Amino acid sequence: MFVADLETPSVVVDLDVMERNLSRMADYCRSNNLRLRPHTKSHKVPALAKRQLAHGAHGITVAKIGEAEVMLDAGITDILIAYPIVGTAKAEKLADLATRANVTVALDSVEAAQSISAAANKTNARVSVLVELDVGFHRCGVADEDEVMNLARKVADLPGLEFKGLMFFPGHLQVLEKERAELRAAVNDFLERSLAKLHAADLPVTIVSGGSTPTAREGHLFSGVNEIRPGMYIFNDRNMMGIGIASVEDCALSVVTTVVSTSVAGRAIVDAGSKTLSSDRHLAGDGKGFGMVKTDPDAELEQLSEEHGHLNISKSSREYRVGEQLAIIPNHVCSTVNMHNQIYGVRGERVETVWEVTGRGKVQ
Amino acid sequence: MFVADLETPSVVVDLDVMERNLSRMADYCRSNNLRLRPHTKSHKVPALAKRQLAHGAHGITVAKIGEAEVMLDAGITDILIAYPIVGTAKAEKLADLATRANVTVALDSVEAAQSISAAANKTNARVSVLVELDVGFHRCGVADEDEVMNLARKVADLPGLEFKGLMFFPGHLQVLEKERAELRAAVNDFLERSLAKLHAADLPVTIVSGGSTPTAREGHLFSGVNEIRPGMYIFNDRNMMGIGIASVEDCALSVVTTVVSTSVAGRAIVDAGSKTLSSDRHLAGDGKGFGMVKTDPDAELEQLSEEHGHLNISKSSREYRVGEQLAIIPNHVCSTVNMHNQIYGVRGERVETVWEVTGRGKVQ
Repeated sequence: MFVADLETPSVVVDLDVMERNLSRMADYCRSNNLRLRPHTKSHKVPALAKRQLAHGAHGITVAKIGEAEVMLDAGITDILIAYPIVGTAKAEKLADLATRANVTVALDSVEAAQSISAAANKTNARVSVLVELDVGFHRCGVADEDEVMNLARKVADLPGLEFKGLMFFPGHLQVLEKERAELRAAVNDFLERSLAKLHAADLPVTIVSGGSTPTAREGHLFSGVNEIRPGMYIFNDRNMMGIGIASVEDCALSVVTTVVSTSVAGRAIVDAGSKTLSSDRHLAGDGKGFGMVKTDPDAELEQLSEEHGHLNISKSSREYRVGEQLAIIPNHVCSTVNMHNQIYGVRGERVETVWEVTGRGKVQ
Repeated sequence: MFVADLETPSVVVDLDVMERNLSRMADYCRSNNLRLRPHTKSHKVPALAKRQLAHGAHGITVAKIGEAEVMLDAGITDILIAYPIVGTAKAEKLADLATRANVTVALDSVEAAQSISAAANKTNARVSVLVELDVGFHRCGVADEDEVMNLARKVADLPGLEFKGLMFFPGHLQVLEKERAELRAAVNDFLERSLAKLHAADLPVTIVSGGSTPTAREGHLFSGVNEIRPGMYIFNDRNMMGIGIASVEDCALSVVTTVVSTSVAGRAIVDAGSKTLSSDRHLAGDGKGFGMVKTDPDAELEQLSEEHGHLNISKSSREYRVGEQLAIIPNHVCSTVNMHNQIYGVRGERVETVWEVTGRGKVQ
């Protein structure tokens, strides 16, 4: 089967580009003595998580208990849940997972620590815990080294839990390189103060987990960091191009669409809207557009309906015909993959494999 | 089971409110001699489509062949696909559907008409066709009465197709009432010119299909319209509140979430992000926010990560605790439902039913 034979819209992954992305990141980590723990939210496919492990990843990251279950069922046994697990039902599922796998969880509250401890105690499980720091994104994470210290001590004292170290998500560093460098100093300052305080209190830190795709190749510049958790690097997307992390040649994933209408002047409508691409905005430049037409940078994907992509082609010299296929690089691959039950692995024009997105929809 | 027992995030539908929404719209249509053909993209659940038919709908609308298949498999046999079906593979599926159900399709190109005709001819199916008009949203649809006429004649001449009338989507009328009234005049002008021309040419028009939820209760004010296709009215959402179409009491659907972190000052983080609510923007007012916390209008859901909703609570007098449940009305119900495999029907605090969203992910 060829790409041209796929019904549209379909998500296709160029296997050569993907393999190159995986291998580059693994090489970087090896050269810099960093453990690689890819965030699998970007693909949610166990077979792809296994490709990452085959490239030398030390384990995987997930966002949800349901995603962890899917990965564990596929035989992956070293899993970080980089999300606060709150409530008895979820704590019990987590404790159950921890009887079958090496499970680590990040948290920022005594409430989460206590309920996980209670559940782990019931099943005789040991759950490894990272204390999450708010290094500037202002989402989750404790605010200063005293709070780090208090929560770490609490975790160390609770039965069923093992304090392993620190985690942070530098979401505010999804910016151009120069701005990242300026923001990094404050991150490092917080990390250093926390590590010194924990060291003085004899609370040993074995893991400092940082990094996201935008900062992944700068992992070695963060104080104490010995593990990174990039997700999007497997595919890359228009947002990563926007901050200069990837070029169009590094984008492994695209959405194959068909032009379904050209009847409005200056417009071509493709069969990929917000229910195919997601309505995630472009987080760079002028923020405009919902994706990039690979073969025509002059066409602007300026608006999405649920099932229609509105291409403004008034600045394009290309002619658009009803029925032709177009490949679009989405703004944000994680959200695009999440819309689909299947994605296709292709080599050149040939469809080589189809993956079920088995981690999709595991919202809980 | 009670709502408080649901794992979060979960989508819940207040059955009493939903029934009232269904019945009000059905009453309006009866009183105004309009056929009701609800767009089922908003829920994608056959059981809910059947509730709409039980309230007197004459058939349903879908966006995709895959959605039509799901509805037909559930026994629903009068289906409008309000989307241009382009390409041989899709045309053949459409023709197959037309051998089993009363299928109508909207289109705006000769290419679409020809390929559907060829496929219908092969299976001896008859496909009813509406010509789509661009009444001002500038997405799909032909531009003037001459193009309407040319395409209608072409359809009437092609074997396997039956020209039935006109369809339009007044997406640009998702605005406040006063603005809608101003824009309606141009829509009516185009409709009247087209109907006169078709009448003069002896091309009988039996269906003029208009309407979306924002304009649904104004269906009788559009020239010649005898059918409307509202979708969101079954649930309503923050966007419908924003343009004054619904009040909070009319919103049947909400997302039950849990506060998972309060460690950042002025913030509470809930476990519903863009993969739960969708990142669809607010299309009214200042455009800010990704949903409304039902019990606290002073909390602003100002940002979404994939699995985190960032509540700015700095203007709220309420205290937020890790572990508590919050219900959120999303900006756009269609996109929210599309994120989920199941949604729950509740009466008061009791969970009465669970529906599989079987039409979800049928992107093709």
